[in-house]
Amino acid sequence: MASGKVVFAVSVVLLVVGLVVGILLGHYVTAPAAGGNKPPSGSSEPTVPKSYQDAVRKPDSSISGRLINGINPDKIRENLEYLSAKSHVAGSAVSLEQAEWIRDSWLEQGLDKAELTTYNVLLSYPPEKNDSQQNRIELLTSSGGAVEFTTQLREPPLDPDTDTPVGDLDILAPFNAYSGSGEIEGDIVYVNYGRVEDFHKLERELNISVIGKICIARYGKIFRGTKAAFAEKSGCLGLILYSDPLDYTVAGEPVYPDGIYLPGTGTQRGTLMSGTGDPLTPGYPAIDSAYRTPINETNLPNIPVHPIGYNDAAHFLGIMGGEETSSDWAGSISNVTYRYGPGFNATNQDKKVAMRIFTENRMANAYNTIGTIRGSVEPDRYVIIGNHRDAWGYGAVDPSSGTACMMEISRLFGSFVKDGWRPRRTIMFASWGAEEYGLIGSNEWVEEYIQKLGGRAVAYLNVDTAVIGTYTLGAFGTPNLHKTVHQAAQKIPDPNPEGKRMTVYDTWKERDFFGNTVDGNPTVGDLGSGSDYASFLQLAGISAIDLRYTFDRISTPIPAFYPLYHSVYETFTLVDRYLDPGFKYHKAMSQLMGEIARNLAESILLPMDVGVYAEYVMGYYENLRQGNIGQRLTQEGISLVYMQDAVNELSEAANAFVRRVDAADRTDVLQVRMLNDQMHRFERAFIDPQGLPGRPFVRHIVFAPSSRDAYSNDKFPGIVDTMFDIDNNPDPEKWNHVKKQLSVAIFTIKSAASVLLEVA
Amino acid sequence: MASGKVVFAVSVVLLVVGLVVGILLGHYVTAPAAGGNKPPSGSSEPTVPKSYQDAVRKPDSSISGRLINGINPDKIRENLEYLSAKSHVAGSAVSLEQAEWIRDSWLEQGLDKAELTTYNVLLSYPPEKNDSQQNRIELLTSSGGAVEFTTQLREPPLDPDTDTPVGDLDILAPFNAYSGSGEIEGDIVYVNYGRVEDFHKLERELNISVIGKICIARYGKIFRGTKAAFAEKSGCLGLILYSDPLDYTVAGEPVYPDGIYLPGTGTQRGTLMSGTGDPLTPGYPAIDSAYRTPINETNLPNIPVHPIGYNDAAHFLGIMGGEETSSDWAGSISNVTYRYGPGFNATNQDKKVAMRIFTENRMANAYNTIGTIRGSVEPDRYVIIGNHRDAWGYGAVDPSSGTACMMEISRLFGSFVKDGWRPRRTIMFASWGAEEYGLIGSNEWVEEYIQKLGGRAVAYLNVDTAVIGTYTLGAFGTPNLHKTVHQAAQKIPDPNPEGKRMTVYDTWKERDFFGNTVDGNPTVGDLGSGSDYASFLQLAGISAIDLRYTFDRISTPIPAFYPLYHSVYETFTLVDRYLDPGFKYHKAMSQLMGEIARNLAESILLPMDVGVYAEYVMGYYENLRQGNIGQRLTQEGISLVYMQDAVNELSEAANAFVRRVDAADRTDVLQVRMLNDQMHRFERAFIDPQGLPGRPFVRHIVFAPSSRDAYSNDKFPGIVDTMFDIDNNPDPEKWNHVKKQLSVAIFTIKSAASVLLEVA
Repeated sequence: MASGKVVFAVSVVLLVVGLVVGILLGHYVTAPAAGGNKPPSGSSEPTVPKSYQDAVRKPDSSISGRLINGINPDKIRENLEYLSAKSHVAGSAVSLEQAEWIRDSWLEQGLDKAELTTYNVLLSYPPEKNDSQQNRIELLTSSGGAVEFTTQLREPPLDPDTDTPVGDLDILAPFNAYSGSGEIEGDIVYVNYGRVEDFHKLERELNISVIGKICIARYGKIFRGTKAAFAEKSGCLGLILYSDPLDYTVAGEPVYPDGIYLPGTGTQRGTLMSGTGDPLTPGYPAIDSAYRTPINETNLPNIPVHPIGYNDAAHFLGIMGGEETSSDWAGSISNVTYRYGPGFNATNQDKKVAMRIFTENRMANAYNTIGTIRGSVEPDRYVIIGNHRDAWGYGAVDPSSGTACMMEISRLFGSFVKDGWRPRRTIMFASWGAEEYGLIGSNEWVEEYIQKLGGRAVAYLNVDTAVIGTYTLGAFGTPNLHKTVHQAAQKIPDPNPEGKRMTVYDTWKERDFFGNTVDGNPTVGDLGSGSDYASFLQLAGISAIDLRYTFDRISTPIPAFYPLYHSVYETFTLVDRYLDPGFKYHKAMSQLMGEIARNLAESILLPMDVGVYAEYVMGYYENLRQGNIGQRLTQEGISLVYMQDAVNELSEAANAFVRRVDAADRTDVLQVRMLNDQMHRFERAFIDPQGLPGRPFVRHIVFAPSSRDAYSNDKFPGIVDTMFDIDNNPDPEKWNHVKKQLSVAIFTIKSAASVLLEVA
Repeated sequence: MASGKVVFAVSVVLLVVGLVVGILLGHYVTAPAAGGNKPPSGSSEPTVPKSYQDAVRKPDSSISGRLINGINPDKIRENLEYLSAKSHVAGSAVSLEQAEWIRDSWLEQGLDKAELTTYNVLLSYPPEKNDSQQNRIELLTSSGGAVEFTTQLREPPLDPDTDTPVGDLDILAPFNAYSGSGEIEGDIVYVNYGRVEDFHKLERELNISVIGKICIARYGKIFRGTKAAFAEKSGCLGLILYSDPLDYTVAGEPVYPDGIYLPGTGTQRGTLMSGTGDPLTPGYPAIDSAYRTPINETNLPNIPVHPIGYNDAAHFLGIMGGEETSSDWAGSISNVTYRYGPGFNATNQDKKVAMRIFTENRMANAYNTIGTIRGSVEPDRYVIIGNHRDAWGYGAVDPSSGTACMMEISRLFGSFVKDGWRPRRTIMFASWGAEEYGLIGSNEWVEEYIQKLGGRAVAYLNVDTAVIGTYTLGAFGTPNLHKTVHQAAQKIPDPNPEGKRMTVYDTWKERDFFGNTVDGNPTVGDLGSGSDYASFLQLAGISAIDLRYTFDRISTPIPAFYPLYHSVYETFTLVDRYLDPGFKYHKAMSQLMGEIARNLAESILLPMDVGVYAEYVMGYYENLRQGNIGQRLTQEGISLVYMQDAVNELSEAANAFVRRVDAADRTDVLQVRMLNDQMHRFERAFIDPQGLPGRPFVRHIVFAPSSRDAYSNDKFPGIVDTMFDIDNNPDPEKWNHVKKQLSVAIFTIKSAASVLLEVA
C-alpha cells in the first residue's frame, strides 16, 4: 500500500511535471517561432512572431535614467574645445574637416550609419586676407577728398592669454554675407534700428529723405536682412550696421575679455538673405542636376552693407548734423548726441562717408553630416535632432555649444546600441552646413527629401546655441510638443537648484519669462525663423522644438540675442570661463534634448498632444478677433463666423481624438500606428502647397516668420501680411487679398480637423 | 518487478499525457486570449489579440468568385433605366434627386455610411425653355439684313417609339458651357479642327487672318475648350463648333434612330473650361467660407461659342468662298466643297453670319454622394471607385452606363458586408457632380480632403462611360496598376468569346489597339484628362485607372469619342437596343472593376508594381531622348546625362524594392504596412507642389494633360511645354525655362527613387 501511495504520488508528480513542462513548451516553443514566411491562414492556429512581440513591447524603462545619468559635462567640454579651436565658416576646409570628424565620431559611437551630403550653393565672402583691397568705411575730408578715418579691418585680440587664435588671419574679416559690392560715397542718415516704422518716421514725420544717402542703423530688434531690404527699398545708397552699447552692453558690467558683453571693437557678422536656402535653387535642392536661377533674378541685396563696432561708429555718429533724435532713437555711445542727419554738423559739413565693399558671392559646398540609428519596430518613422556646424568665427556659442551637446547625446544612444538596445523608431542626428548664410544645409536637405520626410518624420529637435545664459530654459516649439518638453524638464536635475527647486522644470516655471500659461506650466514660445527648424516646420510641416539656456531678459533687457553674437570673441574661453564653467547647463540641455528624443522615439503612442495644439489655435484666433485686425475686419464687414466655426471644429475633433488615444488598445499594432500617423501628420495639415502671399516656400498657415522680422513670428501670417499691405499702401482692391487669405486659413484649419476624425 | 515495470509504464504514460495536454493547453489557452487591453511587457508571456490575427489573415478566397458570379446584368439595366429616365444636368433638381437615390441605395445595400457633400460653384446654362431669346446662329442676307436661315433651337425627337422624353423641354438646348454671351455678326472662316497647327496654317501659310471673323471648326481630335481658347487668342470674334459626318458617322452605316451614328440634327454639348474644378476657387474647395475669384480674373472664354449639327452647318459651309481646302481639311457633308473663306462665294458675297448667344454663368450646387465600407484592418487606407452623375441630357452612356455598373458593384460588396464580411481596407464609392463642366465635383472634393487623401488613398478607379462599343477593353492607368488590370481581366469571363478566347484578357490581348507591350500583355494606356481621375492623379498624386469597353478604332477610325456623345440621342434605347443588348459588356465591366477594387482593398501586400512604373518612366525618357526634343536639347548643348542617371536610379531602387516585397514576412504587420506605405505613396513622389509652368494645380511631373489638348497627355509635360513655347515664339532666354523644367523632372524622379529605398 505504501508502494501504491508512492506510485500515486509519483504519478501525480509526473503528471504535474508533464503538464507544467508541456504548458511551457506549448507556450514558448510556438511563441518565439518568429518571422517565418508562411502566412497563417484565418482558421489555423495563430503564431506569435517576434515582430509582433517587438511591436507591442513597452520601452525599456532603464534607458531614460541611463541617458540622464550618463551625460558627462567633461565630454561636452572636450567636444566644444575641438569644435571651437578653429574658425569654420561654411565652405571652408575646416568646416569639411569637422563634418568628417562628426561622421567618424558617430560611427565610432555606435550609430548604424553616418554620411555626408553635399550641396553646391551660392555663398558670399569678404576679400581674402592678403588681397590689397579690404572692406572698410572711410570718413573723407570732402567729396572725393582725403581719408580722415578708416574703420578697423579686423577685430584685434583682446585677451593675450586665451585669445591666441583671435586675430589670426584665417577668421573672416567682419562682413555681411550677400552684401552688394562697390565703392560709394555720400551723406549719412541715422535710421535707428532700420525697421519699417523707423523709415516711415524719417520719411513721413520728419520729412528726411534717405534716397541716395548712406544709412546707418544699429543692430537689434529685427533681423538684419530685413533692415537691408528696407534700406534698399527706401532708396539708401548703402547701409552701415553697427552695434550700439545700449543694445550690447549693460552699464557697469565688464566687456570681453573681462566679461560677456561686447567691447567697442566687437563686430557682428551675419547674412542679409531674407529667404531660406540656397538663393539660386529656390524650392529645389542644390544637387548637381539643379537649375540655378541667374543671380540677377534673385532678391539678394544690391547695395553695399557693412557691419562695424561702436568704437568705429562713434567717429561718424559723433559729428552728425540735423535734429537731435527722440530719446527712443538714442543709443549710449559715450559723448555722442544722436542726430538724424542728413550729413554732418556745421564743423564737419564738407565731410563725406565712403563705403568700400568688395564682398563677393561665390559657389561653394555646404556639407551636412547625417547619422542614423535604425528603429527596431518602426524604422520608417524618424525623430531628428539637428544643429548647424558652420560658424562665422570660432563659434563656441553659435553653434558649437549645441553641437557639443548633440555629440554627447549621440554618444549615449550609440553606447546603448552597442549594448544591444535599439529605439522603436529611427533616430537621426544632423550636422547642417551653411546655416549662417540662410539655413542653407538644412533647407536643401528638406527640399531633397521632402517626399520622404512628409510621410515619415515625427518631429525635428533643434539645438543651436545651447547656452547663452544660466538663468532659465528658453523653449520654443509647436504646441503639440509643449507637454513633451514639460515632462522631460521634470526629469532633469536642476543645474541651478535653490530652495525647493529640484528640476529644470522647477526653475523654468519660477522664471518663466513669457508669463505662465493657463495650465500652470511654463511657457513654450512660438517658432519664428533664425535656425534650422524653419524648413522642417514651414516648408515640410514637421513639428519642431528649439531649446536653449538663456539669461534673464527682464533684468537684462538687451535686444541682442546675446552680446558677443557673431563676433570674433565667441571663443571657447568665453564659454569655459564665463558662460558655463563646469558645463553643467550644457549637461542639462543635453539631458533634456536626449530625453525628449528618447520619448518621441520610444513611446508606443506618440507623445504629441493635438489637444494643446487646438487650444493654441483657438487662442490665436481669439487674439486676432479681439485685436486690431479683428476690429478692422468687422469695420470692413468681413465676418469671422466661418473662422470661429473652423476653430471650434478643430477643438472638437482634437478632443475626440485625444479620447480615442486615451482609450487605445496598445496591443493593436495597426490601431496604434493609425493614431500615431494621425498625430504626426497633423502638423502637415497646416501646410498650404501654394505658400503664403509672396513667399511660396513658407507654407505653414498658422505660424510663419514675420515678413517684418524673420526672427519673430506671426500667427495666421497670410492675414497679417495682407492687412499690413493695406496699412502700408491702402487700396480698396486689396481687401480681396485679405478675404482670400482668411478663407485659406479657415479651409486649412478645417482640413487639420478632418485629419483627426475617425479614419473611415 | 512486474509492478515496477507497470509503475514505469504508467509513469511514462502519465508524463506523456501531461506533456501533450500541457502543450495543447499552453498553446491554445494563450493563443486566442484576444484583444485584451493589457499590453504585454517584454519578458512576460505574449498573447495573440484578435487584432493581430485579423492583420495577418489572408483575404477570404471566396469573395472574388462571389463577386464575379454575382454581378447581374438585369440589375445594371434597371439602374441605367432609372438613371437615364430624365435629363440631369449638374445643378438641376433631378441631379440632386439622383444623388439622394444613390445615397439611399447605398445605405440599403449595406454600406456603412453614405452622404452628400455640396459645393456651390460657377456653372453655365443656356436660356430657359420659355425665354424669348434662344441661342442660335443666323445667316443674314447682308450686314444687318434679314434672317435667311436660323439653326435649330433644339434637337427633334427621331424615334417616336422610344424617344418619348427626347425633345421634352427639360433637356438643355445645345450650348457650350462657359461660352461668352452676346450678339455678333461677321464673315466666316473655316479653321478645320481648330488646333494650333490649323490656326498656324491659316495665318502663316495661307495668309488668311481670322481676326474679327466668325470661325467655324469641326469637333474632334482635341478638347473643344482648347479650340475655343486658340480661337479667342487668334482673334476670332466667335466660334461655331459643328460635328462633321466624316468624324461622327461611317459611310453606309445607319444613323440614329436606326443605329449608333450621329444624325444631322445631333449636336454635341460640352464645356469650354480648360482648367479643372470650380473656376472661382482654383486650388481650394468651394466650401461656404471660400473666397471666390472675381469672374474677370478667371480664364473663361470671352467670345461666344456655339455647337451645331451637320444639317445646320451645311447652310454655311455650302456657300463659302475662298480657296478649296486641302484634302486633310475636307469633311464629308453631302454636296459641300470645303473652302477656307473668308466669307461666302460670289453668289452669296453680301451675306453675313450672326451668332446670338445668351448663355449665362450662374452659381449652382454640385452634389457628390460618397459611400463607405469601413475596412476591418486598415480603415485608414482608401480604395476609391467613382463616376460622375451629371449629364448634358439623358446621359445613358456618359456617365450613367458607368454609374449603373458602379451601383451593381456596391450592391455586391454591400451584400457581403451584410453577410459579415469586411474588406481589409476601406472601400469608398463616389458619385460626382458637375463633371461635365470641368471635373468640378471630384476636384472640389480632392481639394477639400487632399491632406487626408495624400496620406491614405491607395488608388482611384474611374468608371465613366462604361460601354461605347463591344470590340475590346480600353484601359488607361498609372503603370503601377497595369498588372492589376491584367490579372483581374484574366479572371473575368469573356462577354465576346470566340475560338480559344475565354476571358476579357484574351480578347483584349488579341484586339489591343495600342499594339502589345514588350511583356506580351495588352497595353494599358496613359491617363490624360477628361474624367474625374484627373484631380486624383494630377493634383493629389494618387494612382488611378480608367476603363471602358470600346469599339474597333482601327476599322472605325472616327476621331470622335463615340458618335452620339453629348447629344440628346444618348438614350436608354441607344444602349439597350444597339450598344449592349443584354448588358453583358456592362456586366464584364462591373466584374472587372469590382475585382480590381477587391484586390486592392483585400491583399495583404498591395498589388501595385513599382517595377513596371520605373520601366515606363525609363521608356518615356528613351522616347524623349531619341525623339525631336532630345535632338534639340543636344543641339543646344543641354545634357541629358543627369536625367539618364535619375531614371537608372529609379530602376535600381524599384528593382530592389520589388525584391524586398517578394521576400516580405507577411506575419510582420508593421513591415507589411511600411512596404504598402512605400507602394501607395510612390505616386505622390511625382507631385511637385509648385505645379507645371502656368498650371499650378497640375502637379504630376511624369503625366499631365497636354496643354494643346486636355484629352491627351504628355510625358514630362514641363519639358514638353517649355520646348513648345520656344517653337511657338522663339526667344533664347526661354532655354532657361527648359533647363529648369529638365532639372525639376530629374529631381522628382530621384525623389521617387528615394521613397523606395530602405526606410532607414
